[in-house]
Amino acid sequence: MSLPAHMYAAHVTGPGPAEAIRYGRIPVPGIGPTDVLVRVRMVAADPVDVFVRSGAYPTPMPSPFVIGRDLVGEVAAVGPGATGFSPGLPVWCNSLGHDGRQGSFAKYAVVPADRLYPVPPGVDEADLVAAAHPAATAWLALFRHGRLRAGENVHVGGGAGNVGSAAVALAVAAGARVVATARPEGFASVRALGAAEVLDYRDPDLTDGLRTAAPGGYRVWVDTSGRGDLAAGVGLLAHGGRLVVMAGLHATPALPLGSLYTRDASVVGFAISNASVADLADAAGGVAFLLRETRWRPRVAGRLPLSQAAQAHRRLETGDVNGRLVLSP
Amino acid sequence: MSLPAHMYAAHVTGPGPAEAIRYGRIPVPGIGPTDVLVRVRMVAADPVDVFVRSGAYPTPMPSPFVIGRDLVGEVAAVGPGATGFSPGLPVWCNSLGHDGRQGSFAKYAVVPADRLYPVPPGVDEADLVAAAHPAATAWLALFRHGRLRAGENVHVGGGAGNVGSAAVALAVAAGARVVATARPEGFASVRALGAAEVLDYRDPDLTDGLRTAAPGGYRVWVDTSGRGDLAAGVGLLAHGGRLVVMAGLHATPALPLGSLYTRDASVVGFAISNASVADLADAAGGVAFLLRETRWRPRVAGRLPLSQAAQAHRRLETGDVNGRLVLSP
Repeated sequence: MSLPAHMYAAHVTGPGPAEAIRYGRIPVPGIGPTDVLVRVRMVAADPVDVFVRSGAYPTPMPSPFVIGRDLVGEVAAVGPGATGFSPGLPVWCNSLGHDGRQGSFAKYAVVPADRLYPVPPGVDEADLVAAAHPAATAWLALFRHGRLRAGENVHVGGGAGNVGSAAVALAVAAGARVVATARPEGFASVRALGAAEVLDYRDPDLTDGLRTAAPGGYRVWVDTSGRGDLAAGVGLLAHGGRLVVMAGLHATPALPLGSLYTRDASVVGFAISNASVADLADAAGGVAFLLRETRWRPRVAGRLPLSQAAQAHRRLETGDVNGRLVLSP
Repeated sequence: MSLPAHMYAAHVTGPGPAEAIRYGRIPVPGIGPTDVLVRVRMVAADPVDVFVRSGAYPTPMPSPFVIGRDLVGEVAAVGPGATGFSPGLPVWCNSLGHDGRQGSFAKYAVVPADRLYPVPPGVDEADLVAAAHPAATAWLALFRHGRLRAGENVHVGGGAGNVGSAAVALAVAAGARVVATARPEGFASVRALGAAEVLDYRDPDLTDGLRTAAPGGYRVWVDTSGRGDLAAGVGLLAHGGRLVVMAGLHATPALPLGSLYTRDASVVGFAISNASVADLADAAGGVAFLLRETRWRPRVAGRLPLSQAAQAHRRLETGDVNGRLVLSP
């Protein structure tokens, strides 16, 4: 199949509001020696895409800048040094659209070969693109930064959310004991993923409930929202415990230093944007494992044409999305 | 030399005020198979001794409980499984008096062999007992928990203090670049230890000065007091940086989550009381290195007879000590 000279893409000319996203024709990009050109079939819109587009998360941004970081598609062309990929192979990626890389919200996208993974056999592509960001984030939180191991107690705050539900399923599959929080209407789904206990995060006695659920404390505490009670979390860590933070861009909760240092505990922050290609590849293995070996699936809240990218960003900004938004060019 | 049946010791019957410390005769303790009985020559009084005695730092406490964790002395008797020690050998320890172990403030003390180290050749014993706690704390902060390496920028808050000055000297000797804070009257001594820059911690423009001193950010940030500006520190960390906390029992500073997670940074707490015997042995090597290979020496603020242990604790509680208090039975 020959490549066209131009393609439709959702792009901006610099940081700005959702309304600044243009959907129009730009040149199909060229590839370097270790790049792969991917013909995009589906993308997903992430909260972090909104931060990048608005400028809240500063990162180098060429102009025009194609938004978005996740995609599923098929190989359209391969640089001479990009081994392991051939035209037509179904592939996915979750690390475009930052650090100077163009984004995924286009008909074609350039992906460095070490950031591109074959679609695992038997996995639904809409599930995969919807899972790519939250499931990789959950994997990095639990295993790369939380260092969770079998038999340990882990708390997952927001266990019914996109990242939280993936974290519950991954932690259970890794042999950990999960105590999660959710709204009561989410209890059944979180229990179905294997959580040992699920508590209402609005319960005024939540801290007592979490203490009772793991009297020896939590080895790993994952706050997926940035809105959890950091002080209570630090107080409920086991000796050497790790409270993993991945959200809360403007939050400034009080940190009880005494509870932290007297138990050799730590508060560990990370953003998937900073992950090395090696860590991302490990996480990609975790995403495939999650979709193939557990009953967890991402919740797809809506399917849109790529031309409605601006609307997708607006919906994420208003918080009016219960699940993931998948778009197709 | 035969052992007496009784000895003088500074002891308490449970958590309580400094005035509850008794100086009187109690039985010389027996030793187990892997213990060494040490005839104590000098001990030092640590702030953490005060926390243990008052109950602020809860730990199992037999009754009567001999206070204190550090000692220098000589081997008086050796259990059959305590290899490497023979009577008369000069030795030191810095991990008695917590987790159920009796303390060091006595004529004789039982030390598990894996917590006992030979006095390094050429090292003054008063320097050694005074250095044992702050220098080991500084070593653990920089290398075990901060993971500091040569060529990195490290901030040491309180660079003229007991722990801080040891941290400056250790970091410089390890090839790191040190930016410290101190009062102006301490600048010369901190510079003499090799700090690249020393800033006044009361300067209203301190944060700007610290940023200018390390434009790429700090890989490790050591707050020795628990009173440093945690939010400013997190904001000045490099990507992947580690802010090490070892004090501030009742402090609850605000933690800017966005600055933390978007740069993969962490706040790492530790207490030397939690250190493993392997980590303590590594740190003991660092203490010997510091006293033998650098110009750093602990500041001994006072020498007292062991009978004045209660007075030493009162002085630590009022903050009226600029340096270390060394006592002798």
